[in-house]
Amino acid sequence: MGGSFALALREAGYTGRIVGVSSEATIDRALARGVIDEGLPGAEAASCADLVFLAQPISVIIETIGAIAARVPKHALVTDVGSTKSAIMAAGAQIAGGLFVGGHPMAGKEARGLEAASAELFRGRVWGLTPAHPGDLEQPQCREFLVWLEKIGAIPLILDAGEHDRIVALTSHLPQLASSALAATLAERTSGTSPVHGPGLEDMTRLALSSFEIWADILATNPDNIASALETYIAVMETIRKNVVTSSYPDIRQIFERGSAFARSLRGPTNGEPA
Amino acid sequence: MGGSFALALREAGYTGRIVGVSSEATIDRALARGVIDEGLPGAEAASCADLVFLAQPISVIIETIGAIAARVPKHALVTDVGSTKSAIMAAGAQIAGGLFVGGHPMAGKEARGLEAASAELFRGRVWGLTPAHPGDLEQPQCREFLVWLEKIGAIPLILDAGEHDRIVALTSHLPQLASSALAATLAERTSGTSPVHGPGLEDMTRLALSSFEIWADILATNPDNIASALETYIAVMETIRKNVVTSSYPDIRQIFERGSAFARSLRGPTNGEPA
Repeated sequence: MGGSFALALREAGYTGRIVGVSSEATIDRALARGVIDEGLPGAEAASCADLVFLAQPISVIIETIGAIAARVPKHALVTDVGSTKSAIMAAGAQIAGGLFVGGHPMAGKEARGLEAASAELFRGRVWGLTPAHPGDLEQPQCREFLVWLEKIGAIPLILDAGEHDRIVALTSHLPQLASSALAATLAERTSGTSPVHGPGLEDMTRLALSSFEIWADILATNPDNIASALETYIAVMETIRKNVVTSSYPDIRQIFERGSAFARSLRGPTNGEPA
Repeated sequence: MGGSFALALREAGYTGRIVGVSSEATIDRALARGVIDEGLPGAEAASCADLVFLAQPISVIIETIGAIAARVPKHALVTDVGSTKSAIMAAGAQIAGGLFVGGHPMAGKEARGLEAASAELFRGRVWGLTPAHPGDLEQPQCREFLVWLEKIGAIPLILDAGEHDRIVALTSHLPQLASSALAATLAERTSGTSPVHGPGLEDMTRLALSSFEIWADILATNPDNIASALETYIAVMETIRKNVVTSSYPDIRQIFERGSAFARSLRGPTNGEPA
């Protein structure tokens, strides 16, 4: 996601220096592709940055914040792309000099790494921002960041870190777990791939392609909200199961009707039915 | 699906007469669009058909089979597109004259009706066939039907009706219920649409756009297989929930890894990672 952000900035006309912090191999490839201007060790990069953009797994973001906390220049903005925000905001309070504002671009894809980087990744997608104090957004470094977010096509959305984590447990973490669990159920019950499936199963197992590595941190930093979302979901599935067994359909009909109304509203008035 | 099949036949070069059986309004629109050559009442259409193609909800297919059972010409093939096959095969045994072979094109989409009809709907998609006896497929009318299925780009797959119903409970019915339950959970817990979501939620709620009407029949004609699939799925979700609460990740990691292996195998060696 760091690579996509760098490419998006360039495409939007940013002419400043972009410094990458990564493994030597990734830095070499990023230089070769023109994604960054220079590679530096993290501490050194942080000391000379106007914007520190942390695109790492959540636990690494938290570690990095600790490592650079004393080095960030006063005028700088530190932000991140972690999928949960409460734990990261707590860590961000350590940053003594610059300003820390949490971020979460809702633009993930299953493929990761520099090869999958795209300047268009953020276009039309919500970019959640969780300032510690609402006034933080009025600071000059944050105002400039917001200008660039809009230039790369993202839709900034300001919200409280706790509220963010409650919502994404439902809109992101639960769908991921539902997809992984579905694919694991089919693996268990079909002894491998079955050719007898429609396009729906491909939709429902796309998230299951995601690697567990980033999810371990998400589960560890948002357990209460995720457990609560799972509880509601399991109760709905259990209602369906019981009523299938007794051939009683009013409750299942209501679940379908509520579900389809939600699915339509998600797509907005202009999108309507999908092709 | 009847309209898509008619369009696909025409596009594949079929020059025989295509007779539609439907409401007056649908017949008028199908004639205007050139999908059919003529509209007739069902009994009359069945008496003069070489192929009777039943594209209706399961319960209506079963009723229609009873209504036309005595009228089908000896040389004719009767087939259907119902999503479950055991109950329909039992009904098909009533057909005295012609041959009945169950069918299930795995090519549904959320939008239904003549307006959504497309000659390309079946291209590259499996078309399940459940003959009562394997020898039925060697009958001339069935051999000709198979030729046309291949011409419209479908991939015929022969299987036993009971085995079909066991598999689709996992690959089609469970994904539908998981999607509807997910969307209903979000409706309940977010009090409407939240803008904070990524593309994954749209994938996971696409099936939830489906109407309950066709699903009532599916649930009623495949309850044991569906209940069993739901039981396994709920158990996997419950394993995840418990381990999230206790911050224990080995079981969840295994679910993710099994799930992603299945999701990859579903896409085949040539498709690889999605964009």
